[in-house]
Amino acid sequence: MTDFIKRVGTSSYEGKIALVCAHDDDALQAVSVAKKNKLADFVLVGIKKSIESIAKENNLDIEGIEIIDESDEKTSAEIAVKLVREKKCSALMKGLVQTALMMKAVLNKDNGLRTDRILSHVGFCMLKDGQEYFITDAAMNIEPNVEAKKCIIKNACDVANALGYEEPNVACLCAKEYYDEKMLATVHAKQLQELYLSGEITNCKVSGPLALDNAVSKEAAICKGITDPVAGNANILLCHDLDTANVLYKALIYMSESQTGSVIMGASCPIILTSRADSWDIKLNSIFLASKIASFRHL
Amino acid sequence: MTDFIKRVGTSSYEGKIALVCAHDDDALQAVSVAKKNKLADFVLVGIKKSIESIAKENNLDIEGIEIIDESDEKTSAEIAVKLVREKKCSALMKGLVQTALMMKAVLNKDNGLRTDRILSHVGFCMLKDGQEYFITDAAMNIEPNVEAKKCIIKNACDVANALGYEEPNVACLCAKEYYDEKMLATVHAKQLQELYLSGEITNCKVSGPLALDNAVSKEAAICKGITDPVAGNANILLCHDLDTANVLYKALIYMSESQTGSVIMGASCPIILTSRADSWDIKLNSIFLASKIASFRHL
Repeated sequence: MTDFIKRVGTSSYEGKIALVCAHDDDALQAVSVAKKNKLADFVLVGIKKSIESIAKENNLDIEGIEIIDESDEKTSAEIAVKLVREKKCSALMKGLVQTALMMKAVLNKDNGLRTDRILSHVGFCMLKDGQEYFITDAAMNIEPNVEAKKCIIKNACDVANALGYEEPNVACLCAKEYYDEKMLATVHAKQLQELYLSGEITNCKVSGPLALDNAVSKEAAICKGITDPVAGNANILLCHDLDTANVLYKALIYMSESQTGSVIMGASCPIILTSRADSWDIKLNSIFLASKIASFRHL
Repeated sequence: MTDFIKRVGTSSYEGKIALVCAHDDDALQAVSVAKKNKLADFVLVGIKKSIESIAKENNLDIEGIEIIDESDEKTSAEIAVKLVREKKCSALMKGLVQTALMMKAVLNKDNGLRTDRILSHVGFCMLKDGQEYFITDAAMNIEPNVEAKKCIIKNACDVANALGYEEPNVACLCAKEYYDEKMLATVHAKQLQELYLSGEITNCKVSGPLALDNAVSKEAAICKGITDPVAGNANILLCHDLDTANVLYKALIYMSESQTGSVIMGASCPIILTSRADSWDIKLNSIFLASKIASFRHL
């Protein structure tokens, strides 16, 4: 059992994850391990015959997991969303379905899982030295404005709360640690800190502009004379845009020895939307992360 | 001796580094170690009395290093630049001088170190697993356009050449690995690849859009069906803007176990412009990197 699973795994939770188009090798492999370790349970929506033959070929134990036989992609997504609406499932996971198609079912105004929030991606990274960070938004919003960033912060706070951070420290990352009107990231960061100070953003501490070194290293913050309580103590790393968050999250996955998992937040349940290129570990971690969040909400 | 110094250190080179406002604890400490290991030589421009007392207090051996006594910051910078123009020094280093003031002397149209290129920052990172990457531009250009990025690539190639990469692979990093007109990074990346294919960018291979995973991991590239020769084999990671490059470079410094050093390129000599918050290691590594580049040019 990895450190990530030890940290994130929830053995007592009985909520289920609805897997959309479950006839997917990778996803089923993660499902069988999660089930085996009693760390998550599932409802598989997809082509029953294919699901069973994949399980047989790969020697995967999916005994006892409910299967809803459905061959149409769109209908599979709709069924899974309905399971969540009816509280039969508490998280959604992408199998062999086009992302856009699944998200359309999620965002459907009448029968979807919309809330008053926008959707955003939250990556949870455990560094080799034990430090933990929530990185956002590496997958959904290209160039979020301040209003969108307020939502992105809330979504990340929900994940941090589930992992025990009652009032997480949010660093609004920029290339520099001071306001520069020529750099939009610093303009947004200043506005977000002001919104926090005026009480419009709550349940967390927000600081910015901060550069990554000042956000994660107390020494670096002290060197630059930054005394802000978030500096050197950041939990949530709010990146300026998709380019920045994507590169940061992927650097931790591919260029350090971090353990990571991620979820999409902002809908009425956490959504597991891993990429084809993601390792099997990351897929499993993301399942545990979603279960943890669903379990926390259930409490 | 660290892996970085083993990789980058040049013992046979006799070029000197001009240190601007050398009355600086941190800089002098790096100077004394570099000198002791015969890995670089210096000319110290600054307040002689202060330089000598700092050396004495910190037990630093600066015996035999030339000192030019000058108390004025601006004049110190001008003297150091002149030493490079007269080929008495082959690299420039920032001591206790304001960056803007030093760069003004470098960029002076009549007596500076201008070339036909813009200045840009190149970070060299050695990951724990031995992989090496050149990251650019984490410090100089806020939102470079395609023309500027052509120069930034050339500057990074000069550093890569000095470290033995004759025709480095340049990945134009984006959040996605395909063209999307809504994402400027992918528009630039496509244009840069076209300029390379038409022969306007030479002495390297350029590919983009690539996401960081496809750039550094062959497995991830294969998963996404990318067969480009740069994919999974990138040496130079060209980031879209300052926010992105800064966060990537700092993530490798502060959130992985990489060894790093950096230089400013594009002037007639490499410039060492480390930050107050940089560790002593990084300062030393940057000195070696600049020496290596100067030595390579000298060949």
